[in-house]
Formats: sequence, structure tokens, C-alpha cells
Amino acid sequence: MNVTIRGHTQHFRTVTFDRAQNFVLLIEQRLLPHEFKIVPAKNFKETVAAIRDMVVRGAGAIGATAAYGLAQGALAFRGNDLRKFSAHVENVYKTLKDARPTAVDPVNAMNDVRREMARGKTVEEKQSLALAAAEEFANEDVRHCEEIGKHGAKLIRSGMKILTHCNAGWLAFVDIGTATAPMYAAQKLGKKFHVFCDETRPRSQGATLTAWELAQQKISHQIIADNAAGHLMQRGEIDLVIVGSDRTLGRTGEVTNKIGTYTKSVLAARHKIPFYVAIPLSTIDWNLKSGLKIPIEERGENEVLGAWGKNSRGQREFIRVANPMSGARNPGFDVTPPELITGIITPAGIFKPKELWSRRRELGFAG
Amino acid sequence: MNVTIRGHTQHFRTVTFDRAQNFVLLIEQRLLPHEFKIVPAKNFKETVAAIRDMVVRGAGAIGATAAYGLAQGALAFRGNDLRKFSAHVENVYKTLKDARPTAVDPVNAMNDVRREMARGKTVEEKQSLALAAAEEFANEDVRHCEEIGKHGAKLIRSGMKILTHCNAGWLAFVDIGTATAPMYAAQKLGKKFHVFCDETRPRSQGATLTAWELAQQKISHQIIADNAAGHLMQRGEIDLVIVGSDRTLGRTGEVTNKIGTYTKSVLAARHKIPFYVAIPLSTIDWNLKSGLKIPIEERGENEVLGAWGKNSRGQREFIRVANPMSGARNPGFDVTPPELITGIITPAGIFKPKELWSRRRELGFAG
Repeated sequence: MNVTIRGHTQHFRTVTFDRAQNFVLLIEQRLLPHEFKIVPAKNFKETVAAIRDMVVRGAGAIGATAAYGLAQGALAFRGNDLRKFSAHVENVYKTLKDARPTAVDPVNAMNDVRREMARGKTVEEKQSLALAAAEEFANEDVRHCEEIGKHGAKLIRSGMKILTHCNAGWLAFVDIGTATAPMYAAQKLGKKFHVFCDETRPRSQGATLTAWELAQQKISHQIIADNAAGHLMQRGEIDLVIVGSDRTLGRTGEVTNKIGTYTKSVLAARHKIPFYVAIPLSTIDWNLKSGLKIPIEERGENEVLGAWGKNSRGQREFIRVANPMSGARNPGFDVTPPELITGIITPAGIFKPKELWSRRRELGFAG
Repeated sequence: MNVTIRGHTQHFRTVTFDRAQNFVLLIEQRLLPHEFKIVPAKNFKETVAAIRDMVVRGAGAIGATAAYGLAQGALAFRGNDLRKFSAHVENVYKTLKDARPTAVDPVNAMNDVRREMARGKTVEEKQSLALAAAEEFANEDVRHCEEIGKHGAKLIRSGMKILTHCNAGWLAFVDIGTATAPMYAAQKLGKKFHVFCDETRPRSQGATLTAWELAQQKISHQIIADNAAGHLMQRGEIDLVIVGSDRTLGRTGEVTNKIGTYTKSVLAARHKIPFYVAIPLSTIDWNLKSGLKIPIEERGENEVLGAWGKNSRGQREFIRVANPMSGARNPGFDVTPPELITGIITPAGIFKPKELWSRRRELGFAG
């Protein structure tokens, strides 16, 4: 999407590849929203570090970064020995995989790259195929988000006020994003609307990343405390809710997403406000049979007990907000049941949550 | 309630009076939870400043402070001239009233004091009656909170997990508090339970004041992000919700309280978890006929865009969390409808919200 730096507007993807220098180029997301900077990962080990240290985060974005990282590692190989090349690539693959051991996207993305590489006969051919496959993974991520935007834009009418939670924006993917895709597509169609971004404590991705994205795209928006949406709904100030998903159960239509999503779905149902979830196909879990079986990550308590931000001297700093003698409980995600979801916006169209299973072939279920 | 400082446990009220020096003594609430300090307001002008600058906050606490401030001003008068005394007291009254112009408790409290003073024949008698009336106002605030505790403690069983929102604790009153009163009373009865304190963004009173109170009283508790309660309810981890109220409509049973309260009531109803509101009689509004007519204060956006806390150098500091180019919407309160409230805990007993009007004589309605 577009970013404006000192008056100049330019298009960026979250992750790109510099073929001449064999660098993976990343938006340094840890500096956002206070600073926008592209950093190069100059070899696959730096790419591993960037994924591990969360320079880049978000399902689609780390998938593409891993794919590029594998190609980068392959391209750095010198010589014609296929056995040595193969061992080298295997090492790169494993190192990248271990950067975020619980994420599924890097593995899927790198498997695509490896499958393509297998078609090459020489080291050079394999190197070339690796990069082409990584580019294709990134491009497909973008196309999927564009399709989500195309379907979702139909839900947005001019004058609407839309609520979103956390960040399922372009920073979490290669471009465009999922929950934000309908907004960006509607804007292109000339529709005018307003977005309320839930702050999304404890990590504040709504106040930092989503608000930054919308500001860059010049979409009218305001940040609200996570406590405020209920009141705004009560007074008729929210017309539509669109959120993303970390894992959607294909068999039940249950949606796992950032903590607080479930609360918003309960409020939306009470106020008869449409509640949509925008998802890439890669987040559909076709195996699990119950949302209660989804393990919910309990994160460290410091996130709840304080906050990161910029201090009066312009430095990034953590402050302790809470009572020093108190601890915290910090579940990272929650599960929204299908009856509270109006529709699931996928690259293949908008479906009722319970329809996912019957439409599984269209939605990429290979089982 | 009790506060432990360097191993010594001592009982404190939020506001007391030092008759020998004619000082109003206050807990400096702006330093909590990081520092506990009693500060003297050495004359009525300092008492005005303490109310205005929020050294003391909370309905009952500022009511008692204003009552003491009026007595303090009266006691500072030298001479026997009743006319001059009367003009002086009127000036003190007006100055205290203007310290927090929208609050109703200081006015009610000072009217009590003035009514008592009218019974005196000399300046000295009036001075003495003023202080006695201020003491009585503070003591009645404590008795009311004790009664709330007595009735509310019956709702708490050992093993329960209780959710509360914001701070309706003893710091907001002279002692004991309202939402916390049932917890303190249940603790005295030997019941063991756990409290989840909603952080309560944007001002974080749950993470700071309520958590501090519960820690001092050695009640098991954890702070949670405002986003987390829905998930905890879904997994059966919350048995009871108790909150306070800034204004309760006696005619309809609607409850105005800190932003986010309504959301918790909607979640509690979905999960069939009892949702109680604890209120002093002074917060019942017998006039308004609809909650939609309650003006909701829209506060400044900086509260949402950042946070106050203690930095790594031990200093209190504000940090900007949100995207610098984005604004915020910041409604301060919301309205919970009677059908979502299991009961209202008052000093006179527990009532259904719709019962308040028919029981209005018991509840102090003088109209």
C-alpha cells in the first residue's frame, strides 16, 4: 500500500526481494507507528533473525519472508554440486522453520518453494525456480487479499461507520491485508466511510499498526478504547464490524482471533450489527472438530501490566502502569462461535460460517 | 482500609480531619499505585485545590472532603461577628463547590453541614456544629458502604471468581467502597475467592487503584485486559460480576458507570453470570426518565492515545502509544439497561433494578 514520507507517496509491500544484491527487504515493523524504515536482511541468517525478532509479523508476511529467505539461501550457494546444494538448502529450510516454531505459514510457503525447485535439473535452474516460486507465493498472497477486498467492498456503503479489532491489515500480509482489504477496495470505488480502530490491548496493534495503515491510506478513522465499542453500538454509531482470523475451523465455522474479538461479536449480535471475518484460505484449519480444543496461548503478564510507547524525549520506552504488587492473566486469543458471525469473507467469496465445510473444495481443502 | 507500609499495617480513611491543626488529611491518589502518601490541605484553599486537581477523587471521597473543607474554612474564622462569619462561610462554600462543578456529592455534603450550622447561635457553636456535621457525613458514608458489604457478602461463596471494572473501591469513598464492599465483607467472614480486575482503559483505574486496594487487603486477584473477560466467561472462569455506578436512574433502573461496564453486562447475560451493581443512595437520580437522556462526557483523546506509568528510572511519565497522525474518540461512561442487571446492592438491601422506584421511600427519595 502507499506510504507518504516527507510529502512523497510511494507504494510498498511488507516484504520484497532485491535480486541484484540478494537481499530480503522488510518494513521494520517494530519501529511503527513512530518510524517507517525498510531494512535489508543481507543473508538468510539475517532473514531468520528478522522473523524470529518480529521485524516482520503476521501470517502472510512471515510466509512470504520465509519463502524469500529460502530462495535467498539457495541463491547464495556457489558451485554446481547438486548434493552439496541440496544439503545447504535443507539447512536453510530448517533454520527458517525454527524462527517461529508454532507458525504454519512459513512452512507452507517454503514447501511451495521446495516443490518448484525439484523441477530444476541444475543448481542454477533450481536457484532460479526458487526465486520464481517465492515471488509467486508473495503475489498469490496479494491476489488473495485483492479478492477478499473485491467481495468485501460490497458490504460497505458510503456513510458507514466500521469497527475493526487488532491488525489484520497489509502489514500482516504482503499487501492490502484481510480485514482492511474491503476498506481499501471500497475507498478505490469512491466510497466514504469512517473506521473505529479498537486499541486492542494489551499489545495495542489497533492503535499502532491499523491506525498507521489507515492514516497512510487517508481513510477517516479514530482509535477507541476496547471498552468503548459497546457504547457506540448502543447509540447507533457502528454499522459494520470486520475482523481478521488467526485460525478458522473449516468443520464448525468457529473463528480464533485476537483476544477481544469474541466480545465484539457478542455486542454486534445484540445490536443486530453485521459481523464479518475476513480470512485468507491458509488460516482455515480443516482438522479440528471443536473450538474448545483450540489451545489459547497464555502470554506473559508484563504486556497487561504496562505499555510501550514514545516518551517525551522521543525514545521508545516501556512504562509500568499497574500496581507493582499485582499480577496479570493474559490470554492472547479467543474463539467466536459461528452463530455470532454474519459471514466469512474469503478470496473465493463470502460464506456463512457453517457453509465452509460443504464448500471445502472451492476453499482449497485437499484432504 | 488497611495499608501496609514497610511491614507496618495501619488503617486509613481516604479523608480525615486533624482538629488540632485544622488540616484536612488526604491520601494523595495521583501517586498511587506507585507511592502511598498522606498530604495535608492546610487551609480551605488547599482543600479546594486538592479536589480540583484530583488529589482526591470518587463520589463519596470528594463529598466528605468538601464537608471537611467547609468546616475547616469555618473554623479558621477569628472573631464573634455573625454577619462576617456568614459571609466568610458562603465564600468558602462557593469556592469548594466550583472545584468540581459537575459533581453532586460536594454540594449535598456541604448542604448537610450548612443545615447543621444553622442550629448554632454563636460563631463558636456554629464552628463546632460544622465539624460535627462533616464528621457525620464521613461516618455515614462509611456506614452505607458497610451495609452494602453486609448485603453483598451473601452473594460471594468460597471458590468464586469475581470480575470487577474500574474502581468503586474504598479510595472512591471514605472507606470500604461499594463494588469492593462485598469482597471485603466476605473476606472478613473467612471466604476465599479470586478477583479479576479489568484494566479499565483508558485511565486504567482497575490496574492501578483497584489492584492496589486488593493487594493491600491481601485479596487474591489478577489484572486482565478489558478484552479478556469474554474469553474467561466462555471458559467458565467468572462466576460473578460486581461493579459500581456513577448515576443510577431510580425510575428506570438504568445504570451509568465507567465506559466498558455495559459490555461486561452484555457478556454476563450471554453466559448467565450474575451481574450486580453496588451503589450508595447518593448516586440514585430520581428525576431522569430515560438513560438515553444521560449526557455522556466525551473526554480528551490523549487518554486513549497513550498511557501514564512509571518508567525504568522510577519516574512517572506519559508515553504516546498510538500512531502520531491518528485521533481518538473517548466516551467516559456508558449506560447499562435494567434487563442486564441481576440486582442492585444498596445500603438498604439488594433490589431488582425495576424495584427501585416502588421502594423509593426506603431508598431516601424525598420528592
